[in-house]
Amino acid sequence: MKRFLDNKDNVGEEMWQLMAELYPICRSITGAGVRDTLKKIGEIIPLKIAEVPTGTKVFDWIIPREWNIKDAYIKNSRGETILDFNDSNLHVLNYSVPVNKIVSLEELRPHLYTIPEHPDWIPYHTSYYDEKWGFCLSHKQFVALEDDDYAVFIDSSLKDGHLNFGECIIRGETQEEILISCHICHPSLCNDNLSGLVLSTFLAKHLKQIPLRFTYRFLFIPATIGSITWLSLNESNISLIQHGLVAVNLGDSGKFTYKKSRKGNTEIDQAVMNVLKNSVVDSQIIDFFPYGYDERQYCSPGFDLPVGCLMRTPHGRYPEYHTSADNLEFVKPQYLAESFSIYSSVLYVLENNGTYVSCNQKCEPQLGKRGVYQQIAGHSDSQTRQLAMFWVLNLSDGDHTLLDISNRSGLDFSLIKDTADMLVKCDLLTEPVK
Amino acid sequence: MKRFLDNKDNVGEEMWQLMAELYPICRSITGAGVRDTLKKIGEIIPLKIAEVPTGTKVFDWIIPREWNIKDAYIKNSRGETILDFNDSNLHVLNYSVPVNKIVSLEELRPHLYTIPEHPDWIPYHTSYYDEKWGFCLSHKQFVALEDDDYAVFIDSSLKDGHLNFGECIIRGETQEEILISCHICHPSLCNDNLSGLVLSTFLAKHLKQIPLRFTYRFLFIPATIGSITWLSLNESNISLIQHGLVAVNLGDSGKFTYKKSRKGNTEIDQAVMNVLKNSVVDSQIIDFFPYGYDERQYCSPGFDLPVGCLMRTPHGRYPEYHTSADNLEFVKPQYLAESFSIYSSVLYVLENNGTYVSCNQKCEPQLGKRGVYQQIAGHSDSQTRQLAMFWVLNLSDGDHTLLDISNRSGLDFSLIKDTADMLVKCDLLTEPVK
Amino acid sequence: MKRFLDNKDNVGEEMWQLMAELYPICRSITGAGVRDTLKKIGEIIPLKIAEVPTGTKVFDWIIPREWNIKDAYIKNSRGETILDFNDSNLHVLNYSVPVNKIVSLEELRPHLYTIPEHPDWIPYHTSYYDEKWGFCLSHKQFVALEDDDYAVFIDSSLKDGHLNFGECIIRGETQEEILISCHICHPSLCNDNLSGLVLSTFLAKHLKQIPLRFTYRFLFIPATIGSITWLSLNESNISLIQHGLVAVNLGDSGKFTYKKSRKGNTEIDQAVMNVLKNSVVDSQIIDFFPYGYDERQYCSPGFDLPVGCLMRTPHGRYPEYHTSADNLEFVKPQYLAESFSIYSSVLYVLENNGTYVSCNQKCEPQLGKRGVYQQIAGHSDSQTRQLAMFWVLNLSDGDHTLLDISNRSGLDFSLIKDTADMLVKCDLLTEPVK
Repeated sequence: MKRFLDNKDNVGEEMWQLMAELYPICRSITGAGVRDTLKKIGEIIPLKIAEVPTGTKVFDWIIPREWNIKDAYIKNSRGETILDFNDSNLHVLNYSVPVNKIVSLEELRPHLYTIPEHPDWIPYHTSYYDEKWGFCLSHKQFVALEDDDYAVFIDSSLKDGHLNFGECIIRGETQEEILISCHICHPSLCNDNLSGLVLSTFLAKHLKQIPLRFTYRFLFIPATIGSITWLSLNESNISLIQHGLVAVNLGDSGKFTYKKSRKGNTEIDQAVMNVLKNSVVDSQIIDFFPYGYDERQYCSPGFDLPVGCLMRTPHGRYPEYHTSADNLEFVKPQYLAESFSIYSSVLYVLENNGTYVSCNQKCEPQLGKRGVYQQIAGHSDSQTRQLAMFWVLNLSDGDHTLLDISNRSGLDFSLIKDTADMLVKCDLLTEPVK
Repeated sequence: MKRFLDNKDNVGEEMWQLMAELYPICRSITGAGVRDTLKKIGEIIPLKIAEVPTGTKVFDWIIPREWNIKDAYIKNSRGETILDFNDSNLHVLNYSVPVNKIVSLEELRPHLYTIPEHPDWIPYHTSYYDEKWGFCLSHKQFVALEDDDYAVFIDSSLKDGHLNFGECIIRGETQEEILISCHICHPSLCNDNLSGLVLSTFLAKHLKQIPLRFTYRFLFIPATIGSITWLSLNESNISLIQHGLVAVNLGDSGKFTYKKSRKGNTEIDQAVMNVLKNSVVDSQIIDFFPYGYDERQYCSPGFDLPVGCLMRTPHGRYPEYHTSADNLEFVKPQYLAESFSIYSSVLYVLENNGTYVSCNQKCEPQLGKRGVYQQIAGHSDSQTRQLAMFWVLNLSDGDHTLLDISNRSGLDFSLIKDTADMLVKCDLLTEPVK
Repeated sequence: MKRFLDNKDNVGEEMWQLMAELYPICRSITGAGVRDTLKKIGEIIPLKIAEVPTGTKVFDWIIPREWNIKDAYIKNSRGETILDFNDSNLHVLNYSVPVNKIVSLEELRPHLYTIPEHPDWIPYHTSYYDEKWGFCLSHKQFVALEDDDYAVFIDSSLKDGHLNFGECIIRGETQEEILISCHICHPSLCNDNLSGLVLSTFLAKHLKQIPLRFTYRFLFIPATIGSITWLSLNESNISLIQHGLVAVNLGDSGKFTYKKSRKGNTEIDQAVMNVLKNSVVDSQIIDFFPYGYDERQYCSPGFDLPVGCLMRTPHGRYPEYHTSADNLEFVKPQYLAESFSIYSSVLYVLENNGTYVSCNQKCEPQLGKRGVYQQIAGHSDSQTRQLAMFWVLNLSDGDHTLLDISNRSGLDFSLIKDTADMLVKCDLLTEPVK
């Protein structure tokens, strides 16, 4: 399957490098970590950074106070540091309230989170809307804790501030939009969410360099509250969105998974399924369900947008999910590059889909006298190209898009598109109505 | 799956006991046997017994003469009783004309019915509209018959009288009706038809004790002519019937079988399939075909009612069918109880189905601030309950019933219903439009 | 499955004999071979032979010059005949321009066509719209060619003349038409195309002898240019065509293959699938694709006629296809006879399909009092006949054709039709609206 963006030799490596730069930042749904992240992205692509004040009502929600953190540790009675925020920003319960006191082991335990099945990994936990303090640590660290008095210290703050998100718009020929949405609220976690973030960044970077039919809107937002905020602020323009994808979990070695939009049979659904069928050995298609990522909000009944989620392994289906093992080693440049390529193919389909009309509705045209056969004679797949020609001519009756023709014929979309272009040149097909 | 009627500890035993009382009665499509049967049922539930005179035209049919029988036997030339009606009421061809004469074995043979494959069993045969006399006997008895002269005696009568049927109406909140129909015309046969009869009786008995949305109409009728008669007399009110089931073959050990209504995708069809899928290990769904029980009449093209047939093993698919082996041992309390429970679950779905509307169509509501998570936190299946919540909120757009949501999510209907109730209490869902 | 035309004992042999007579003729898309072929067919059935002059515009095409050939050979320098047109008319590239010269082996080679995988077989090649000369020969002959000078001689002519095709019309009760189309442009090739040609001839011959509902139009045409020409000349009457089949590849031993019409679910599609399902052990149904035979033109978007292609093994799926091995031995009378029988059954369905209406829409009629049961009692399949009766009565609501009833019940169409006839006689069904 042809890709919209031609081979970008190092795109996998470049994506991974950007991920490595963003990895150490302690992100959350609000705060300096989000701003630092957006700033770095803004150095690569044009990014408008929005600020929405604490207390703003967004549909049923209220923008929360801003969370920031400087330091955190646990020390034992001998003053030895048992756990240090500087080692891993996962060590602190995300959105933890500040704390600074001496507690017994017994008092401490309810504030500690571990994964017994993976004793070396630190889990990732959050408490956005419930005021708590807590630490996450490896189960090995946890079982080594002696009966002692511990100094627990979290130098965090929860104050009125802002929720931030970034928006990158790449203008195309029409106002109609393709939405690519990724979340940016997780701290040092690579597959969920940095992979989606770097993929979106590099898609935007490369799309900016070529002529486009659609306008692209890339959203870099904190999960849930971010998409709700964006939808709330942009309600009047939402009808411009023609197709959309939520980008996440794109750097692991698993096969591709497409979670359909709520409607289930929109053009984006068909385009992704067509690309996966023709491009990769194995993939899975799953129906929409109201859990997962921001497709939950885009596909809430009041919007019901044609937005699916194209990923590799879904959330919760790999053991490293939401743990310190979702790190820079877990995510590989080659898988990121393949994900870039699949997204690129999907955009190729959307950009090029259209309804052509054959100039000869009654009986086949005589192809021989137009030199059409000579054009395909040299190719090793000349028989397939010939068949593609007959399919395009037969189904270009005004009721079938190129994607329909690709699906019905079982032939690759890009072959169908190239064939249509050749037939237009030969005056056998009229220009597409896109 | 929750049942509409809470566990009735002894209901299987009670149903079997009633069956044991009704077993000896010699029933047919008309006559004293039917009246005796209806009288016993009328002692348990309020029953209106209808009388339709011989000769009444009901659509294409005429109510036949009434059949009654006092005695019957075959004696050999030595005066020894070879076959006695008092041993089994199956011995006489049902609706046999009277006879009293001496015949040779050769003359007798065309009047005898046996089952060579099951030499100990007596078959059940009828001749309602063709005037014949005859006896049914075990093949063992048959082959032992010597070349002799036999006195054949059937003290039956065919006289103008009535066709009777019973109707039990349990009033609900609305006039809209659920129809449960069983046939009462078979003599000593348990699975076909006494199981349906006792199930209907006990459903009616228990429904009477609880508040109901629908009005229930239980029909205890002779097969074919009974449903035709009822439809003929009640043509003007038939549009009140919203859902219906024919109850039969409900005491054997086989898996459940649901034969769909002629329309095939009505709410009763969906409700039964949903219940079977979520309640039992194994079951089979079969398409409507114009043979079987009274669904043939309810689903005749001029009515085409949403009436299916929910049974265990279908007619003719168990060897005991229409033989003396379909007796009180063949039918077990535990299977009757399970059938009661499945019917009860189906009624639970029908009573509780409805279209709710989420108060937050645009994006998910913030559940945390409403204490919703606390309500489910204690439960071992809290994750499933949380998912149910998101499904109900996402699909409550006015176009999906709770049954639709259960089907699409794959979650149990009663969980969906409980979730909807909870969300209504939290002001997240409006009252259902049923 | 009942056939429309009763058993024709020798039809397979007769078809094969006609094929044997037509086999030696050197046909092409134009020329004397086509006229000789049509003349022989015209001796069996009434055939109107059309003449369309060279240069006539037919949609996007122009009727080409007429091709005729008298002789052709290759001789070596010793004057020995290496290849002789009189041995096989496949030896000459069909539509070859004339040639008469001495060439070296090297010069000759690009003009030779062989099949290396089948060294004894001569391939069949054409060059209708590209002016070339050439010979087809066995690979054995080819490899035996020595380095020598060869006299190549093709006494062919390409001159203004006519394109011919034959049309046989058998008038039925209505003007509505069934189209049977076969191509007649291949020289000594049996399965593709003589089998379709003889099947069409014998169908026409036998249909002429019986009363018909539909008018039948049999087309004997050169492939592609022939159907395009016919469609171009008959555009105004094409809406009369209700159903159509392209007949080809009907004498080999393979299982039946039905290629659906472009619309895919028309009555002809349903009729063929019904017949194959009920008549033969194994068959395959394939979706329309815009390649193959003249269905390509009938199903071009501007016409989109309900025309499928009913054959045994599809083109290109048997090794003998388009070679000298597709000869009189490859095609057997028994397979031709079976194909005749299947076509006959399909016509039986089309002729007899219709929408009957039951006189008793509300409840079943009382069949006993009308003697219906007696009519079926004697038959070994009386239970199936009884079920057929109930199906016809239940589905004759004005919305179901007999074909629908056959499909839904799974019962043979002819049983459904016979049952409907019987029910009409018993005043239980009204005359069909066809």
